[in-house]
Amino acid sequence: MNKIIFKTANSTLAVAEAGTGVNLLALAREHGVDIDAPCNGNGTCGKCKVRIDGRDALACQATVTSDATVEIPESASAFKTGIKTADLSDGRELAIFRNIQQQLAEFPAGTNLSVVSVQLSEPTLDDPADDWTRLSAELNLQSASLFALSKLPSALRENNWSIDCVIRGDRLIDVGANLRLCGLAVDIGTTTVAAVLTDIQTGEVLAKASAGNGQIRYGADVIHRIVEAEKPDGTEKLRSAILNTLTPLIEQAANSAGIPQTSVYRAAITGNTTMNHLLLGLPSANIRLEPYVPAVMEFPVITASEAALPLNPDAEVLIAPNAGSYVGGDITAGTLASLLWKREDSYALFVDLGTNGELVFGSSEFLFSCACSAGPAIEGGDMSCGTRATDGAIEDCVIDPETLEPRFTVIGNVKPSGICGSGYIDLVAELFRTGIIDARGKLVKQSHRIKDTDGIKSYILAFSDQSGSGRDVEITEVDLDNFIRAKAAIFSAIRTMLAGLDFTVDMIGEVLIAGGIGSGISFSNAVTIGMLPDIELDKYRYLGNTSLAGAYAMLSSDAAAAQVTEIKRNMTYLDLSTHPGYMEEFVGACFIPHTDAGLFPSV
Amino acid sequence: MNKIIFKTANSTLAVAEAGTGVNLLALAREHGVDIDAPCNGNGTCGKCKVRIDGRDALACQATVTSDATVEIPESASAFKTGIKTADLSDGRELAIFRNIQQQLAEFPAGTNLSVVSVQLSEPTLDDPADDWTRLSAELNLQSASLFALSKLPSALRENNWSIDCVIRGDRLIDVGANLRLCGLAVDIGTTTVAAVLTDIQTGEVLAKASAGNGQIRYGADVIHRIVEAEKPDGTEKLRSAILNTLTPLIEQAANSAGIPQTSVYRAAITGNTTMNHLLLGLPSANIRLEPYVPAVMEFPVITASEAALPLNPDAEVLIAPNAGSYVGGDITAGTLASLLWKREDSYALFVDLGTNGELVFGSSEFLFSCACSAGPAIEGGDMSCGTRATDGAIEDCVIDPETLEPRFTVIGNVKPSGICGSGYIDLVAELFRTGIIDARGKLVKQSHRIKDTDGIKSYILAFSDQSGSGRDVEITEVDLDNFIRAKAAIFSAIRTMLAGLDFTVDMIGEVLIAGGIGSGISFSNAVTIGMLPDIELDKYRYLGNTSLAGAYAMLSSDAAAAQVTEIKRNMTYLDLSTHPGYMEEFVGACFIPHTDAGLFPSV
Repeated sequence: MNKIIFKTANSTLAVAEAGTGVNLLALAREHGVDIDAPCNGNGTCGKCKVRIDGRDALACQATVTSDATVEIPESASAFKTGIKTADLSDGRELAIFRNIQQQLAEFPAGTNLSVVSVQLSEPTLDDPADDWTRLSAELNLQSASLFALSKLPSALRENNWSIDCVIRGDRLIDVGANLRLCGLAVDIGTTTVAAVLTDIQTGEVLAKASAGNGQIRYGADVIHRIVEAEKPDGTEKLRSAILNTLTPLIEQAANSAGIPQTSVYRAAITGNTTMNHLLLGLPSANIRLEPYVPAVMEFPVITASEAALPLNPDAEVLIAPNAGSYVGGDITAGTLASLLWKREDSYALFVDLGTNGELVFGSSEFLFSCACSAGPAIEGGDMSCGTRATDGAIEDCVIDPETLEPRFTVIGNVKPSGICGSGYIDLVAELFRTGIIDARGKLVKQSHRIKDTDGIKSYILAFSDQSGSGRDVEITEVDLDNFIRAKAAIFSAIRTMLAGLDFTVDMIGEVLIAGGIGSGISFSNAVTIGMLPDIELDKYRYLGNTSLAGAYAMLSSDAAAAQVTEIKRNMTYLDLSTHPGYMEEFVGACFIPHTDAGLFPSV
Repeated sequence: MNKIIFKTANSTLAVAEAGTGVNLLALAREHGVDIDAPCNGNGTCGKCKVRIDGRDALACQATVTSDATVEIPESASAFKTGIKTADLSDGRELAIFRNIQQQLAEFPAGTNLSVVSVQLSEPTLDDPADDWTRLSAELNLQSASLFALSKLPSALRENNWSIDCVIRGDRLIDVGANLRLCGLAVDIGTTTVAAVLTDIQTGEVLAKASAGNGQIRYGADVIHRIVEAEKPDGTEKLRSAILNTLTPLIEQAANSAGIPQTSVYRAAITGNTTMNHLLLGLPSANIRLEPYVPAVMEFPVITASEAALPLNPDAEVLIAPNAGSYVGGDITAGTLASLLWKREDSYALFVDLGTNGELVFGSSEFLFSCACSAGPAIEGGDMSCGTRATDGAIEDCVIDPETLEPRFTVIGNVKPSGICGSGYIDLVAELFRTGIIDARGKLVKQSHRIKDTDGIKSYILAFSDQSGSGRDVEITEVDLDNFIRAKAAIFSAIRTMLAGLDFTVDMIGEVLIAGGIGSGISFSNAVTIGMLPDIELDKYRYLGNTSLAGAYAMLSSDAAAAQVTEIKRNMTYLDLSTHPGYMEEFVGACFIPHTDAGLFPSV
């Protein structure tokens, strides 16, 4: 056996014993050491570069040969999964929820939950009925959760026999003093998880928090995760990874809201088809195997205890229904929030820019949807300096055409340490506009900001001595290639779907952009690089996280939840992977802005 | 910190670090070292005697003063909780179940469970409905457990789309090939836990197993356990102890039956009021506090997942209802099995000789019940050589009036290592008949079999060199005192209840004895010692474990389960502890056979 010490620059993470020939990435994972590996060990992404006894190597390609010390640099730590709680005094955080609450006001409010206050008579030797008989007779209850029963005796005695009861149908699910009906909405993105805790009765948002999806260590996109889930115990491993993300996230949100987690009696979860399958421990393999049949499209109601979510054990967990293998609950719920299904005057295109790109086109008359595997590049994932839109991220960019020097804004007013999605869109547009890159994304100018590392060129936005990470913040030709493929996937999906429906871009009344890319997105630059169609810019509108907003709407109203299922049933799913012409469109879109310049007259 | 090593003669059990002054019994428990302590640390039972650095001491009275080695002799290991699986080819094991099945044949059979075979069409690109839609449409299902959903994709694909489905109402709870509806009946005794696994549809017993109740380490009787449960985290600790008994017991029973545990879709659990509260983690303190109000008398249906039982997560767990604080589900279900409630011609007395003694008197006209804290002596617990009726137990006894030498039978034909309940009844009757003890239970004759240890005399049945335990198998005057109090509690309860109802013993048509004491009980000797009333011996009948038989009946038929609730509602509970005259009766009964010899004309 060889002794392998995993460490960072400052501390030892784990000491492992391993036989010769054991894969280093697998060994690290076994010992709870997170190494970033978006390609899940294929040796292609280069993110898992570590220092083995002082020499650089890819962890996924290295095997144990002797005792060794493995230092994991900051660059190779898995995508940050830290929890961020939102400041609700910032009105922008809540605008989307207020908006959808207002828009859906026509739906009857209300769920199957109620909270009832009751005063019972105290037992005596002459009236010795047990606690449950006393309560159930008073409220005409037929059943109770064990959780509620176990709280009942002390709740009664500590509150002078006057308590609040939370009831669903004729079932008691909680007892106590001053109980509030709370709900949890969660958007499980492939990269990022976002949640809000609400008061179900008023719709008030009590807390909002987000974190990275802990499954990221098993690959950046859904296909890698499905492959990982197919391995022995893989489904359980992927399930644990997301539950280990959600558990502290929920805890922190509940703390921030000042409520016990067991006061959450209803949850609504939106996520793509793979995410909802992996969350529930459902086999996901058939999602990617012909004929592409998920285990479940419309989910029966599941309880929090079945789903292993740390809420009231009887909380009903509503999972937004999937419309297809790659158009999931995030899109059906997002379509609810986009209000596309209510449009009567014109057609709209709804584009959710997540790790996958999903499109919905239609109106109250019809809804068509499709998905394209854009990959995480548009969100800033899978890029050498990619990061979420958090402190240290470059979120916009302008390049001086003379000096080729960049100007940019960094979130949090700190030194830049990475680039987020909206920053990449600006950067690529500016690099193209200034002629630094050509239509294929190759760096063709000379500048002290352009370096060459083993034949791979890059453009440096911030040199290592000015950066927050201590290394150059840059975009490489590999990044550019990734990014161009991602934008091409989105544009060609739009083209293919519209063409299939005999629509042209000028028939689009509005383009509604959703996703974590952030309100900082420049639609003008997104058109410049050929990601979005070249139509009037005032037709573009950024909606934010429609998936989370849809989950929020499902919490407060059974009618809104039913509407999501209605949307799912009315939605026609186009499978682009089997669609003739899509591949050709994609190849044509792998240029800036496009091989057919006529599609982008304004550029 | 001091270092304390816990060991047996042969092996080290645990090494603990402890501050000076820490209680040794508590320290042992914290480190998972089981030391027998039926009095739960009161210093009264003497069972926790250990050797500390070679010197005898009671663990419960000892505190840490320095580094020490604590040897736990065989005599101080906690009551054996080992699992015993019954040999079902022994017809006696099953007689009680066949009998009750026959007797209850008039009830409509059937539960809310069904198993349905279904053949689905295979999905194609033209018919890509998801697995759940395909199945739910075929069977008109409205909901499914997550457990069943997660098994569905592979069940369909591994069985050519032809599977069995287990359904309750319109909910899917299992899928697979060749599924069988199985049920689990469990009698949770204060001392012993017994279970049978059955085929719900045929009533066939597939396995039978028993084990000691692991809560025994927290005290031999229910009061000690309630007191322990009142401590911080106590309820959870007691709950874990019984779950840790049930989990391997269920596993072994399922293995023996050759079925997966998840094929158990229904469970029926019988136990006294304290046992069912502790199993479910319900607060038990109010059971022993005036006005003696349990949390629950009639239990709503609970699922296996709520109860943390390793069965199908959606299995319904039926808990037999309690009739009073000290007349629990074991008695209401036992009354079902005793058929007392069906008697039309005469009255019967039903006596369950467990750790507590419970009585039911009546017929189809009325049912009265009461309980007495006999303690575990009658079962062989809390006695210096007491043991369950397993291999090595002396189960009967005759003493030669001339030589005072004993003759006895040992279960399993091995060397004797203890005495079980029926053995104690014979032994005490014979000691009295031969004049070895007087009416107060004092050893008044001389023999080489009578020894005196520090003023406490004992009668030796088997000397250490002939015993299986390596120590004398004996009955001490302390044991005799315990035993006389136990039999007095039972007899005085019978007298008090009958007197309160204006009945006399000659009006009893039949006395039905239940409990783990074993079919070897000699009713003649039980009358001789004044435990049971002096009526015609042919009126006595031993029924066996009626609590388990009642649970078994509840499994196969919703109607039988409803009848137990009906019995509970028709049963009038007499609280002897507040009953005038009971204490006086008890004192009078603390002699052999009784201070009033007129009550025992045949003795």
